[in-house]
Amino acid sequence: MWKPDRHSKKPLYEQIADHLEQRISYGEFPPGSLLPSERKLAEQLGVNRSTVILAFGELRSMGIIESRPGSGTHVSKYKWGAVPKHTPNWKRYAEGGSFLPNLPFLRRIREALQQNPDLIDFASGELSADLSPLGEITELMGAQPSPSYLGYDHPQGYMPLRQAVASYLDRYRGVQTTESSVLITSGSQQSLYLITQCLLSPGDAVAIEDPSYHYSLPMFQSAGLRIFGLPADEGGIRPEEIRSLVKKHRIKMIFVNPNFQNPTGALLPDDRRGKLLEIASELGLPIVEDDPYSLTDYDGLDRPSLKSMDRVGSVLYIGSLSKIAASGLRVGWMVAPHSIVERLADARQQMDFGLSVIPQQVAARFLESPYFEPHLERLRMQLRLKRDLLIDALHQALPKLIRFHVPQGGIHLWCQLVPEVNDAKLLEEAIKKGVVFVPGSVYGSDSGYVRFTFGRAKAENIGTGIAKFAEALRALIR
Amino acid sequence: MWKPDRHSKKPLYEQIADHLEQRISYGEFPPGSLLPSERKLAEQLGVNRSTVILAFGELRSMGIIESRPGSGTHVSKYKWGAVPKHTPNWKRYAEGGSFLPNLPFLRRIREALQQNPDLIDFASGELSADLSPLGEITELMGAQPSPSYLGYDHPQGYMPLRQAVASYLDRYRGVQTTESSVLITSGSQQSLYLITQCLLSPGDAVAIEDPSYHYSLPMFQSAGLRIFGLPADEGGIRPEEIRSLVKKHRIKMIFVNPNFQNPTGALLPDDRRGKLLEIASELGLPIVEDDPYSLTDYDGLDRPSLKSMDRVGSVLYIGSLSKIAASGLRVGWMVAPHSIVERLADARQQMDFGLSVIPQQVAARFLESPYFEPHLERLRMQLRLKRDLLIDALHQALPKLIRFHVPQGGIHLWCQLVPEVNDAKLLEEAIKKGVVFVPGSVYGSDSGYVRFTFGRAKAENIGTGIAKFAEALRALIR
Repeated sequence: MWKPDRHSKKPLYEQIADHLEQRISYGEFPPGSLLPSERKLAEQLGVNRSTVILAFGELRSMGIIESRPGSGTHVSKYKWGAVPKHTPNWKRYAEGGSFLPNLPFLRRIREALQQNPDLIDFASGELSADLSPLGEITELMGAQPSPSYLGYDHPQGYMPLRQAVASYLDRYRGVQTTESSVLITSGSQQSLYLITQCLLSPGDAVAIEDPSYHYSLPMFQSAGLRIFGLPADEGGIRPEEIRSLVKKHRIKMIFVNPNFQNPTGALLPDDRRGKLLEIASELGLPIVEDDPYSLTDYDGLDRPSLKSMDRVGSVLYIGSLSKIAASGLRVGWMVAPHSIVERLADARQQMDFGLSVIPQQVAARFLESPYFEPHLERLRMQLRLKRDLLIDALHQALPKLIRFHVPQGGIHLWCQLVPEVNDAKLLEEAIKKGVVFVPGSVYGSDSGYVRFTFGRAKAENIGTGIAKFAEALRALIR
Repeated sequence: MWKPDRHSKKPLYEQIADHLEQRISYGEFPPGSLLPSERKLAEQLGVNRSTVILAFGELRSMGIIESRPGSGTHVSKYKWGAVPKHTPNWKRYAEGGSFLPNLPFLRRIREALQQNPDLIDFASGELSADLSPLGEITELMGAQPSPSYLGYDHPQGYMPLRQAVASYLDRYRGVQTTESSVLITSGSQQSLYLITQCLLSPGDAVAIEDPSYHYSLPMFQSAGLRIFGLPADEGGIRPEEIRSLVKKHRIKMIFVNPNFQNPTGALLPDDRRGKLLEIASELGLPIVEDDPYSLTDYDGLDRPSLKSMDRVGSVLYIGSLSKIAASGLRVGWMVAPHSIVERLADARQQMDFGLSVIPQQVAARFLESPYFEPHLERLRMQLRLKRDLLIDALHQALPKLIRFHVPQGGIHLWCQLVPEVNDAKLLEEAIKKGVVFVPGSVYGSDSGYVRFTFGRAKAENIGTGIAKFAEALRALIR
C-alpha cells in the first residue's frame, strides 16, 4: 500500500492530497462516493490526523471533495465534468512571480516551531512575553477614547505617532527631524522592502556587512540587486574597504546595523563611524542605518546613532518597537528627506493602502507615556541577565568547543563552533533534542557559526536549551 | 526677485528648497550664516508659511541647514566640506525601482483633500464615520484581555480571526472553508498585490472588467503584466468574450468584482456567473473574485458569491472589512488552495513580517459579536438613504446633463456626462468649488464619465456637494 515519503521535500499533506486526487481521477472513488474518514486514513498512512485534515482541506479548496457535518467526506459531483483537467494548475501559479521564497533553513525553523511549540527557541529574533510591556499596552488600549473616524490613514502614517516618533528620536537618538520627514512602517522589514523596491533598480549593486541579517532576506535578490559583503570583525566593518568595493562594483547604497549588530552583536567604534560617514559623503553614497537594538545597551549608555552625526544627509534611518517593546505591534519608522518619504509612502499605498490606525495609536501613547523609560530599564536588566545565563550555560555545557565575544547590548550571541559539523545536520539534530537556533550560513558566514537569540527564550529554559544543543552537537562529533 | 512657479509639476516646497540650496551653494548664505525667518521668506515668495516649513524640513533632512529653538535657522557648518557635491542625489534614487507612482489624478485628489479637509468628498472609496461601528470597536478594544504574548503573528494571520472569517464566509457568502485555507491580509489591496507579485510573472496577460477599479492600480503595470479589458454593460462582463481574449493574448488570470462593481455598481446576473465559471473551468483559468460590497445590498438580499458556485476550484476569493465596517482597521482576507496561501504568506513575511495582532483581535471579536448583524442592517439602510439623496440632488441640479443606472448596493454611482468636458479641467474646477470626485478615465473608461462615491460624504453634505459639482460643470460648458 502507498505511504507518503517522509524524506521528500514535498510536505506530507501535499503528497497525500496528490495521491488522493490521482485515485479519484482514476475512478477509484467516483463522483459522489464516500471517502474513508480522516481518522482511518491517518491510521492507514501512518500520519497524524491533522495531516489528513490539511490534505482534505487542499482537495476541498480545489473543489474535488465536499464535507458535510454528520455525513462524512464525499467526492464532488462536478457540475462541469471531471476535475483534473479543469482546475487551474495552482502549483504552476505558486511558482510564478519574481518573488523568491524564504530561505530553506528559515522555513524549516518556522515549521518546526509550528509543529512543536515546546521547542526551546533560540532562533526567533524577538522578546519573550515577560520582556514586553503587555499590561501597559492593554491599559493604554482600554483608555483609548472612541476614535472620531477610522478611515484610511495618511500615507505617511498616523500624525500623532509621527510626532511622538520625532520627539523620541530627538530624546533618545540625537536625531532632529519633524513629522513630515517620518514615515511610519510596520517595522524594519517593510522599511527595507520599500527601499529595495522603490529606490534601487534591478542590477544595482549594494554593500552589506558580512555576516549580516540582510543576507537572510531574499528581498534583495527578489528586487534583482547584486549584493557585496563588507567583511566585519568584532568592531564591525572597516570603512576603508568601501572604496575598493565602489570602484569594482559601482555600489549604489550601503546597509549597516552599527549598534549591537544582528547577528554578531558588534558595536561600531566611533572612529569607524566618522570614517564611514566621511567616505559616504565623499562618494555621494546613501547609507541605510538599521537601528533596532541601540536602546538595549545593558549599561544604559547612550549609543549615538549614525544619523545624529550625519551633517550631509547621507543617512536613511530605520527604527522600530519590535525589539524594545513587542514585535506583534508591527510599528516601525523611517527618517528620510521628504521627497523620499513621499515616494515610499505613495508606493506603500499601492501595496497595502497603509497601516491600521489602532496599533499606531497604542504606540504613540506608549512612547509618550511614563511607562516607557521604566520599561526600558527593566528590559536592559533582564536582557543582561539572560545573556549571562546563556554564557554560563555555554561555558558549562561546551567548554572549549565554542567561541564567542560577549555582546554589551542586543538580543543575539554569535558563536563559532570549534568542531567541524554540517549546519543542516546540526539543526535537525537540535530540533530532535528540542531546541532551535539559526545556522550562521543564513547570515552569509561560512559553516560552523551559530546565532543564539536570548531575547525570546524564557530565562528558566536557557540552561536546558543549551544542554539540549550540546547533546545535539556531541551526537554529531562523536 | 525669484518666485516659485505655480504651474510647475514640481511642488512649491521643492522648488523653494532647490532655490535655497542653490543660493547656499553659490555662497550667498555661507556656512553658519542665519537664514531669513519662515514668516519673512513666505511673504517674499508669496506662499503659505507651511510651504516654507516644508522646504526648510527638506533642507534640514539633507543636512544643509540647522534650526535651534530661539536662535533661528542657520546654514550648517559642514563637518566634511561643502554640501552639494556630497549629499546623495536623492531625487535620482526616488526615481529608481520598478514601482510606478500612483496615477496623477489620484495623487491630485489626495493632495487636495490634505490641503482642504472641508472639501466634500465624493472620491474616497470608504464609509463616513457615522456608518462605521466606532463605539462597538472601542468597546471591544476595552474589553480585550491582556494578551499572553505579542510576538510575530502566524504568517497566515491570527488563528482566531481566520476561524471567525471561515465561519463568516460560511454564514454570509456560502463559502465552505477552513482556517488553513484563509490568509488574513491588510485588505483587498494587499491581496491583489500578493497575487500580482507572486502568482504572475512579468509579461503575463490578465483580463479585467472595463471599466474597473483595477485600472486605477499601477500595481499591475509595476508587476510587468499586460492588461486586457472585458467590455462591461449594465450587467457587467459578457463571459463569452473571454474565449477570444484568451486565444489572442494567452490570458493567465481573470479579475472580477461581480457584486455592485466598482465603479459601475453592476451586479453580474446569475446566468453570466454560471457561464463565467463554465468557461474558466473549461480553459483551466483562475478567477480572482474581489467581493468587498456584497453585504451592502440595500434590500438585504443574499447575493451569492462566485466562489460559492465554484465546484472546480477556479476562484481565489478576496474580501475585507473596509467597505462594511472601517477601512482604517486594515483587515481583509483571501481564500485559496493551501499551497497558494502558503506561498503568499511566505512572500508577505518578507515584505512586512506579517500584520499587527491588535486589529485582528478586534476584527475577530466584531465578526463574532452580536453587534455585527444589526450594524449591517443599519449600514444598508443608511447607504440606501445616501444613494437616494445623491440621485435626487443630481436630478435637481443637472437635469438632462447626466445619465446613470441606479445601483442596488455598494457605495458608488457611475455617471455619464452629456456635455463634452475635459476630465482634468472639470476636476480642477470642482476642487475650486469645494468638491472632489474621481474622473472615469481613472477606471479605464473614455472621458465624460464620473464616479461619485456616496459612502464617505456626510448625508447632510450630499446636496451641497452636487450643487458645487453642477456649478463646476456649468462653468466649463458655458
